[in-house]
Amino acid sequence: MGHKPVVISDPYPQQLERIISPEKKAQLLQLVDLKESTQGRMPDREFDSYLGEAIAIIGQTPLPRKRLEMAPHLKVIFNVEGNFYQNIDYDFCFQRNIYILNCGGAYADAVAEMALCFALDVGRGVTREDRLFREGRERYVLEANRDAVQLTGATVGLIGFGLLGKSLKPLLEPFQCRVLVYDPWLPDNYIKEYGCIPVPLHELLSKSTFIFVLAGVTTENQGFIGEQEFNLIQNGSIFILMSRAAVVDFDEFVKRVEAGQIKGATDVFPEEPLPKNHPMRKLDNMLLSPHRAGGIPQAFYKIGEMIIDDLTLIMRGLPPMRMQQARPETIKKLCSRPVEKHE
Amino acid sequence: MGHKPVVISDPYPQQLERIISPEKKAQLLQLVDLKESTQGRMPDREFDSYLGEAIAIIGQTPLPRKRLEMAPHLKVIFNVEGNFYQNIDYDFCFQRNIYILNCGGAYADAVAEMALCFALDVGRGVTREDRLFREGRERYVLEANRDAVQLTGATVGLIGFGLLGKSLKPLLEPFQCRVLVYDPWLPDNYIKEYGCIPVPLHELLSKSTFIFVLAGVTTENQGFIGEQEFNLIQNGSIFILMSRAAVVDFDEFVKRVEAGQIKGATDVFPEEPLPKNHPMRKLDNMLLSPHRAGGIPQAFYKIGEMIIDDLTLIMRGLPPMRMQQARPETIKKLCSRPVEKHE
Amino acid sequence: MGHKPVVISDPYPQQLERIISPEKKAQLLQLVDLKESTQGRMPDREFDSYLGEAIAIIGQTPLPRKRLEMAPHLKVIFNVEGNFYQNIDYDFCFQRNIYILNCGGAYADAVAEMALCFALDVGRGVTREDRLFREGRERYVLEANRDAVQLTGATVGLIGFGLLGKSLKPLLEPFQCRVLVYDPWLPDNYIKEYGCIPVPLHELLSKSTFIFVLAGVTTENQGFIGEQEFNLIQNGSIFILMSRAAVVDFDEFVKRVEAGQIKGATDVFPEEPLPKNHPMRKLDNMLLSPHRAGGIPQAFYKIGEMIIDDLTLIMRGLPPMRMQQARPETIKKLCSRPVEKHE
Amino acid sequence: MGHKPVVISDPYPQQLERIISPEKKAQLLQLVDLKESTQGRMPDREFDSYLGEAIAIIGQTPLPRKRLEMAPHLKVIFNVEGNFYQNIDYDFCFQRNIYILNCGGAYADAVAEMALCFALDVGRGVTREDRLFREGRERYVLEANRDAVQLTGATVGLIGFGLLGKSLKPLLEPFQCRVLVYDPWLPDNYIKEYGCIPVPLHELLSKSTFIFVLAGVTTENQGFIGEQEFNLIQNGSIFILMSRAAVVDFDEFVKRVEAGQIKGATDVFPEEPLPKNHPMRKLDNMLLSPHRAGGIPQAFYKIGEMIIDDLTLIMRGLPPMRMQQARPETIKKLCSRPVEKHE
Repeated sequence: MGHKPVVISDPYPQQLERIISPEKKAQLLQLVDLKESTQGRMPDREFDSYLGEAIAIIGQTPLPRKRLEMAPHLKVIFNVEGNFYQNIDYDFCFQRNIYILNCGGAYADAVAEMALCFALDVGRGVTREDRLFREGRERYVLEANRDAVQLTGATVGLIGFGLLGKSLKPLLEPFQCRVLVYDPWLPDNYIKEYGCIPVPLHELLSKSTFIFVLAGVTTENQGFIGEQEFNLIQNGSIFILMSRAAVVDFDEFVKRVEAGQIKGATDVFPEEPLPKNHPMRKLDNMLLSPHRAGGIPQAFYKIGEMIIDDLTLIMRGLPPMRMQQARPETIKKLCSRPVEKHE
Repeated sequence: MGHKPVVISDPYPQQLERIISPEKKAQLLQLVDLKESTQGRMPDREFDSYLGEAIAIIGQTPLPRKRLEMAPHLKVIFNVEGNFYQNIDYDFCFQRNIYILNCGGAYADAVAEMALCFALDVGRGVTREDRLFREGRERYVLEANRDAVQLTGATVGLIGFGLLGKSLKPLLEPFQCRVLVYDPWLPDNYIKEYGCIPVPLHELLSKSTFIFVLAGVTTENQGFIGEQEFNLIQNGSIFILMSRAAVVDFDEFVKRVEAGQIKGATDVFPEEPLPKNHPMRKLDNMLLSPHRAGGIPQAFYKIGEMIIDDLTLIMRGLPPMRMQQARPETIKKLCSRPVEKHE
Repeated sequence: MGHKPVVISDPYPQQLERIISPEKKAQLLQLVDLKESTQGRMPDREFDSYLGEAIAIIGQTPLPRKRLEMAPHLKVIFNVEGNFYQNIDYDFCFQRNIYILNCGGAYADAVAEMALCFALDVGRGVTREDRLFREGRERYVLEANRDAVQLTGATVGLIGFGLLGKSLKPLLEPFQCRVLVYDPWLPDNYIKEYGCIPVPLHELLSKSTFIFVLAGVTTENQGFIGEQEFNLIQNGSIFILMSRAAVVDFDEFVKRVEAGQIKGATDVFPEEPLPKNHPMRKLDNMLLSPHRAGGIPQAFYKIGEMIIDDLTLIMRGLPPMRMQQARPETIKKLCSRPVEKHE
Repeated sequence: MGHKPVVISDPYPQQLERIISPEKKAQLLQLVDLKESTQGRMPDREFDSYLGEAIAIIGQTPLPRKRLEMAPHLKVIFNVEGNFYQNIDYDFCFQRNIYILNCGGAYADAVAEMALCFALDVGRGVTREDRLFREGRERYVLEANRDAVQLTGATVGLIGFGLLGKSLKPLLEPFQCRVLVYDPWLPDNYIKEYGCIPVPLHELLSKSTFIFVLAGVTTENQGFIGEQEFNLIQNGSIFILMSRAAVVDFDEFVKRVEAGQIKGATDVFPEEPLPKNHPMRKLDNMLLSPHRAGGIPQAFYKIGEMIIDDLTLIMRGLPPMRMQQARPETIKKLCSRPVEKHE
């Protein structure tokens, strides 16, 4: 102790036990002198007292310049929330080459599986017909299949092609879909290298039978799928919202499903919990999932694994390879408000 | 007319319009002189009157030796039911090299998609949590995920590796599963060539987290997954029944889901419709699907496409390539009773 | 002995030791009473003496009706040459449901690897530049690359889509090629199911940068790629002949490579050995391979493995699954003359 | 002019015309005010005169701090050589968040194709047997195949898993190889996510039938595959050197191929051109390639495409996505000396 490098753990509202398995924690303790918040947020005073020696911080603690200047050995900040907050002096970090790493990649596999599941489920009416079955109103064979849509061979649109899109793409491969991608932050050639077809948003919406919304919220894209955009979508298409409710005009989305133009699935809502009397709770062709696509136990433990891997690399004088690095250009455009989602 | 080869269409209980699109039908009429049953089964007398010239029969009409002997030019019988019946003198057909072709392959893609959907849905509790959401009892994020099982990286067992297993295998590829296969009709090396691991049934059951039952019913395998076999399955595994209810001890299956040992999904039932008061209608962890995995409009139309393709080949003096050929060794072991499933 | 079923082994010009490993042979001897030719062809008299009890024959021994009638228990004939000869009464076999199985599939993997190797090698001038290097005339970096053609993203044409084409297709998958297929024995929809594009021959020739000839010789297709067909090929395309020399006008092929229109590779020749003074031995852009694409030790041993697998199935009353079955329609069109290729 | 942002092009020893197609150049000229070196290196004085306005530099021009301070608007330096040189004040760039981007990725596809080609070619003796054929000494069918090694199903070792390894991995997928990876800069979990097995070097060497050396030279790894390491390699294995000659003890490599322990292929040499009398020019089982795996016309043009894509992103205030970013930790370990390879 004392001779090992100091790492501060203040992951609130996340909990260290949730993101690191006992075995991995033992491994981490071999490697570093871990200063842990015992319950809830670490008191400022305690936190500050560790800064002088700390090489790494695990958590979303506010880090204005004043605090960062107290941490001359700091090399990395591990965000374990998945969202970036405007409570860090990012410019200072970029000048000092302090890494700000994000755990979002830990959930990507789990969310991609769920997105595929939603597409298959809504395309074939699986959840809907299961409900009818429980009510004794099931319809055998062809009768319930008249509106069935197969994923095999369909045109699929991905709105946003970050970690999540890149995790979903391989799952679509055996279905031999034509995969259209709209992502204004990426060059066309980049998208093509993944075997996808870059298109403008309106083309994606008007041509795709399955539409996946995978884009994070930025200062620039709130509600960018609104009335006009929904007008472009073909009758019978399937609209799957995986990333953030704020990128679509949510009322419009609900309205279109209600009207029977599209079928939908969503893992996110403008308010969570959704009001008990919200009309979407009654929609036959809307699959409802209470923000659980990513947060499975395996995904949480992957965060700890990633932290240890990247911390080890950094301590060896190598660049981190597993978590996503905040970048100067985009960090200020990413503005997720702190959803209290791990309670 | 008259100069074109004669083909008899007597597809009852299937309907020709359901399995052949208008475009394809026009194409077929160019090719052959089609003798159609106008409604329901073709009267025997009419049927017999065409046999002397017929080169092909579309349907499951009884064909004892006497009738077959009336058809000296017959080259092929297209079964459009998916099941073989014991109403044909198969030996006679094999001696005369009359093809008996089966349309089962037309459904394989659709069933494979559905099987994957069931696995993902039950693994992540998608339908179950949607139901709770509608009741206003949804549980956000981690709470509903405690029993979530990811397909990615899981050990998967396929019981039966015919057309259906071979259609499902590629869909599993991006999930990097270890795929165990039990199929007593296939040599181990054959299974290995598909990148699967051949194992005995007990090993498959005890090691797999996802178990897919894809085996057709034969005279030899009714109820072969019974009490002892269910005992081998790990707690928390997911059991998905896609092929025929008769291959499992169905009551035992329901019992295990009820007891919480396994979660389940089924597309087939011992009786269809299932009695309204059947207890499985209330099971939280059983996904219920009323025999609709295969019978989607696209799959039905594929049957007609396959018939035209194979008929064209046969008329050109080439072997059929699209439908499955009945084989002397197995035809008598395949004993599906006529499910009246297309009504 | 005597109680085990009798199997006659008369594989000449193949040798049993080459196609069956010692371990596999021991396994076979457990299973059956093997009557072996000790050296070269089995004497007729000896052969005939075993027919009464034989259930299987391994080899290409002449089997006119008279002989077949002496073998009432015969269920299967294993051809271990890869070519079918006109020395069997096939009609009789088909009537009696005696399987005639072919070992061609055992080589498919090895030939597919080699075909891909030829494409990459000729496309990039690998063998050619290695020769120059040995002569001290190598050209570094860009200079030797002016005519380099990448497989990645290229249009590829497969002429013939049997076992060999189906083995090559997956190897091309990561290169994201557009794969055109010409095979007059297959329906378009069959070809599409493998993710290929069915086209007429002239379209394949005029659009493909890499052309693979994979079609076996039949009574109908000798020399079907001749002067007119070569005229259609783009300058700079790569023409790879893997199956049989007789399907192309070989002199024309050599002439086109000589003229610099195309680059070529061939594993087969109209005469083997090729005359020592044949001009193609001097062509810079022709890769020469002395009929060795398939016949590697691993492939030969696979034949024995396939025989045991299929024999076991047949003895259990199940259809064979590993070797290719001769079919009544095509057997008489397959007319390979006996190449003495295993000496 | 003047209103468009200034970009300096000084790519020597590379040439702008080689890395950018005429169409792409026209596009670039629309976008920026391009200051080009007319022939050879741009005179220092001219170069300096542009720095005050320049936002980007294309080339490997020396950039000590003094010069960089003259360029207050500089955002990105495009290295078009593939190697990093110690002629830039990297620390200054990192503090100022000036990107240093590398074009190495443009060659990765082409090199991966070539690496696969070498493996197949040497494994099957393709080039060797072609040479014998030209000498009239070809050996038909089995005779030349006694030492043939199939890639299908083999254990493959990748030494280094950067861009090149990641481009090669998918090409190996259809061969169902077990892929071992040794890369000391990467965590095991990272390697596993690509479906590979992370192993120590000695394990890779002793278990792999095909060994690919794909690691760049660093200050730490020169000659790290030497006598002891070659001792670990199995007889008959195939050793393919794609990246840099300096990472292996080259004489030892040649010795082992000469002795018949291994077969080899190499695209790189300790000296280029290799002395005319070098003994390796005579080795039967060594495939010789004069540093031409990457430098094909298509790859060169890809560099220009990448530059335009990343420059466009940077001008839009977004991070570059196509070229590889120099990283503070590793830049000083990368010490390739300037090979004059594009002459």
